[in-house]
Amino acid sequence: MQHHNIYELGLEANPANYTPMSPVSYLQRAAFVYPNRTAQIHQDTRYTWAQTYERCVRLASGLAGMGIKTGDTVSFLCANIPPLFEAHFGVPMCGAVLNAINTRLDAEAVAFILQHAESKVLFVDKEFSEVASKALKMVAVKPTVIAIDDPYYDQGELLGDTSYDQLLEQAEDNYDWQLPENEWQAITLNYTSGTTGNPKGVVYHHRGAYLNAANNIISWDMGRHPVYLWILPLFHCNGWCFPWSIAAAAGVSVSLRHVRADAIYHEIKENKVTHFCGAPIVLNMLNNAPAEMKSGIEHQVNAMVAGAAPPAAVIEGMESMGFNVTHVYGLTETYGPCVVCAWHDEWNDKELAERAALKARQGVKSPMQEDLMIADTDTMKPVPRDGETIGEIMVRGNIVMKGYLKNPTATEEAFSGDWFHTGDLAVWHEDGYIEIKDRSKDIIISGGENISSIEVEDVLYRHPDVEEAAVVAKPDDKWGETPCAFIKLKDGAEASQEEVIAFCRDNMAHFKAPRYVEFGELPKTSTGKIQKFVLREKSKEL
Amino acid sequence: MQHHNIYELGLEANPANYTPMSPVSYLQRAAFVYPNRTAQIHQDTRYTWAQTYERCVRLASGLAGMGIKTGDTVSFLCANIPPLFEAHFGVPMCGAVLNAINTRLDAEAVAFILQHAESKVLFVDKEFSEVASKALKMVAVKPTVIAIDDPYYDQGELLGDTSYDQLLEQAEDNYDWQLPENEWQAITLNYTSGTTGNPKGVVYHHRGAYLNAANNIISWDMGRHPVYLWILPLFHCNGWCFPWSIAAAAGVSVSLRHVRADAIYHEIKENKVTHFCGAPIVLNMLNNAPAEMKSGIEHQVNAMVAGAAPPAAVIEGMESMGFNVTHVYGLTETYGPCVVCAWHDEWNDKELAERAALKARQGVKSPMQEDLMIADTDTMKPVPRDGETIGEIMVRGNIVMKGYLKNPTATEEAFSGDWFHTGDLAVWHEDGYIEIKDRSKDIIISGGENISSIEVEDVLYRHPDVEEAAVVAKPDDKWGETPCAFIKLKDGAEASQEEVIAFCRDNMAHFKAPRYVEFGELPKTSTGKIQKFVLREKSKEL
Repeated sequence: MQHHNIYELGLEANPANYTPMSPVSYLQRAAFVYPNRTAQIHQDTRYTWAQTYERCVRLASGLAGMGIKTGDTVSFLCANIPPLFEAHFGVPMCGAVLNAINTRLDAEAVAFILQHAESKVLFVDKEFSEVASKALKMVAVKPTVIAIDDPYYDQGELLGDTSYDQLLEQAEDNYDWQLPENEWQAITLNYTSGTTGNPKGVVYHHRGAYLNAANNIISWDMGRHPVYLWILPLFHCNGWCFPWSIAAAAGVSVSLRHVRADAIYHEIKENKVTHFCGAPIVLNMLNNAPAEMKSGIEHQVNAMVAGAAPPAAVIEGMESMGFNVTHVYGLTETYGPCVVCAWHDEWNDKELAERAALKARQGVKSPMQEDLMIADTDTMKPVPRDGETIGEIMVRGNIVMKGYLKNPTATEEAFSGDWFHTGDLAVWHEDGYIEIKDRSKDIIISGGENISSIEVEDVLYRHPDVEEAAVVAKPDDKWGETPCAFIKLKDGAEASQEEVIAFCRDNMAHFKAPRYVEFGELPKTSTGKIQKFVLREKSKEL
Repeated sequence: MQHHNIYELGLEANPANYTPMSPVSYLQRAAFVYPNRTAQIHQDTRYTWAQTYERCVRLASGLAGMGIKTGDTVSFLCANIPPLFEAHFGVPMCGAVLNAINTRLDAEAVAFILQHAESKVLFVDKEFSEVASKALKMVAVKPTVIAIDDPYYDQGELLGDTSYDQLLEQAEDNYDWQLPENEWQAITLNYTSGTTGNPKGVVYHHRGAYLNAANNIISWDMGRHPVYLWILPLFHCNGWCFPWSIAAAAGVSVSLRHVRADAIYHEIKENKVTHFCGAPIVLNMLNNAPAEMKSGIEHQVNAMVAGAAPPAAVIEGMESMGFNVTHVYGLTETYGPCVVCAWHDEWNDKELAERAALKARQGVKSPMQEDLMIADTDTMKPVPRDGETIGEIMVRGNIVMKGYLKNPTATEEAFSGDWFHTGDLAVWHEDGYIEIKDRSKDIIISGGENISSIEVEDVLYRHPDVEEAAVVAKPDDKWGETPCAFIKLKDGAEASQEEVIAFCRDNMAHFKAPRYVEFGELPKTSTGKIQKFVLREKSKEL
């Protein structure tokens, strides 16, 4: 006998009780409720939410006028300035998909992306005209090129026949933008920085963008009208979805072209910045800034960091300035952070070292992410919560990508077993918090023993002379692999290879201590991540 | 030629990137991340989030053991105490639909609901055993009855063969609860209090409950770990969805059986309550409490009120205690508040009267509600934003009911023209904020002129002797209808009918002033709303 369910009759979705979720709705509301509040600050330029909304509508209108339709890709090669912030709304408002390209890529990589994404339009900020010109020469089907002419940047030539401002000026401001027909519709396309091979195009949908915008606010307790500084690149997972969070909270988006300590402190003091995200390297830089630059901040500043655990010394330095640091973890495939080191009030009473150790953990699933586990990659069986057994971090829920563009094999592989496989290795602590031990490829296998390069780096960071450290596997005839450390010393510091190795042996199992130490600047990606594949190559020559 | 859309190929939803949204996920996370944090306070009883989660799992397990399945209705007749809070999770965890019944209803109304909802189980709090017994006698197919034995309430008999606690004790704690297969699945059933005719069963779904839980947090800027006091009945739109918000924010749910000033102040001081919701009548009561009861609150308390605009004197009284009052508007059909008087910082500098006037407006759509308009009921054309033209409030978006249970005609009517029709009349101000002028039936038409009963009440509330006021249409041979005022004076105050009428004539158009004034207690619904239909009958006899 069929089960009788009275709730399944005559209660279907209709336009009054169902709307496809889209973060564009947040912009519309901010402009409606707070038309005269400042939405964007770029040097001496201010745009209110009403003006920002109008600019986004004009962008959508201009693109539609160029024939851009649902499912077309619109690429941007642009710094963290208003046009790229606006593109997060204006591009989807005409149904198109925003592709913000990493501005540190070389011409070949940019060309690969334009071609793979089948970009119809490329907006180019003056600062990146040279690489864009080169890339465009390599692309068979050329996108329409539009120049972004930042009045506060006086270098670089303008590409294309028209500019972003002209496009906006010439467009109608009464363009009838539409929400997507389906919340599963693509909103953005972000290419992974893949250390080897071609990058993969990660597709986000309106549903995930809408939910993660809310998730960011709740997870970080951002409150009303946060003032958000763009240290984290907007091309990085759409700035972890914060353009949409800022709109949902009717906050302020503060532009920043170059990540420099003086510029950051200036914005924090001048515009009372309350929130920013970035790699730990940024905190490091802020912490090592001159005292006079650091002084004079009276308000609470909140920093969200991902990429590596913030070292104790950095946390201490930040706290002494009154900054609150939240550690998160995520990937392009999860719209940015999907794991947060949710703080417990009682941890405030612990000693700095213990606080730092707690904060070094990546944490737990964020409020609107559905599920997180550390499991055996092959059996999909969760590892015990013993803080020791290493497994792969796996995520699932509504803030996970649609998949990789035009790459069904990689998509299927990433989602095998009904979980998204991050490729990152971690342990699961008894309290449910995860702690990354390494990328799969960053585990060093020496004499049959697994050595976590992160563990070795943690020890190195405790050395008083070390500013930055990275450890990789160096091929070794005897041991198979052996840990090799690359170190940038603090200004004026002098430490020898022997001293550093001795320090490591004093602080960890001997077999884990690096056998090679090299001093100098460390190679980094545009987002401040140390490029270990470069160091791996280098280690072979030592 | 078909438009080529590369984003529609091989990027389908799968269990790794799509989960039906359900507020049960918030409970699971709170218990996982903050197992040892207090989740519930009921007098001397404390439950942590881990304990609460276990109790909810046991409730689901117990219900499943009784044969309760997806789509079955589980009714509660219960005060604002832990079992009903837990039911908001435990009932949907076994797929069933929670029906929290208004505890002020008479036996006939309860019987109607049990029968119409086809309730399989009825949980009865001792306080309501008498009405439940009577109701059960009138119901043809009797639900299984389970008693709720609150140890802090020593009156009333226990109904049924088993109790809530026994059900939990006997149930398995490893019950494998499941999320709904579809986020559109029903989660709760709330009957409208309909002033005439039979109440309608408003069905909520998991999607709306999940979104409104987040919406409440963002809209009210609740922050982490709010301490929420249950003044607003849990049976009222599921406590405006706050059980789910509290779980999402890992806050504290503080029980309250009876809404009394002394009990409320005790909880606020003892448990550092940060948030509560209620009707303006509650603020009135708190404001009129003795000074010694009011003193000694050092922390910020936030009150959310709906039902009528909080009068200036009440706002002033609350502010002087450091309470922050947010005015909202909503209906059962919109999961509680869907409109919020979103505050602008610059309004803080205005005079009290002006602040009160701004706060008296219902406001704008809440962050995750999609759309709101004031429109002509027949033409569906929005009214001009002139602050004068009256139209019907219409809402649409993801936080609107599935529809009315077993009532396709009413459902279709409510959603006609692709908007939900609230039946409330309002004007639209230039800045987009709406202000209710009346329920359709509360407009008084006197000599062909429309008189807003709310406008007359606003004037009456300004009279120094008036504690509560309600104005209705009294049938009149000459004018058709004429305004008739019912007034409760403040303790010890003495005002005459003539004096009140003169005061009104001094403060508004003469034709709007009431021609009849009656003094005494005002009849109210369980949620503190004045029962105008009772007064309308009464007015005929004056």
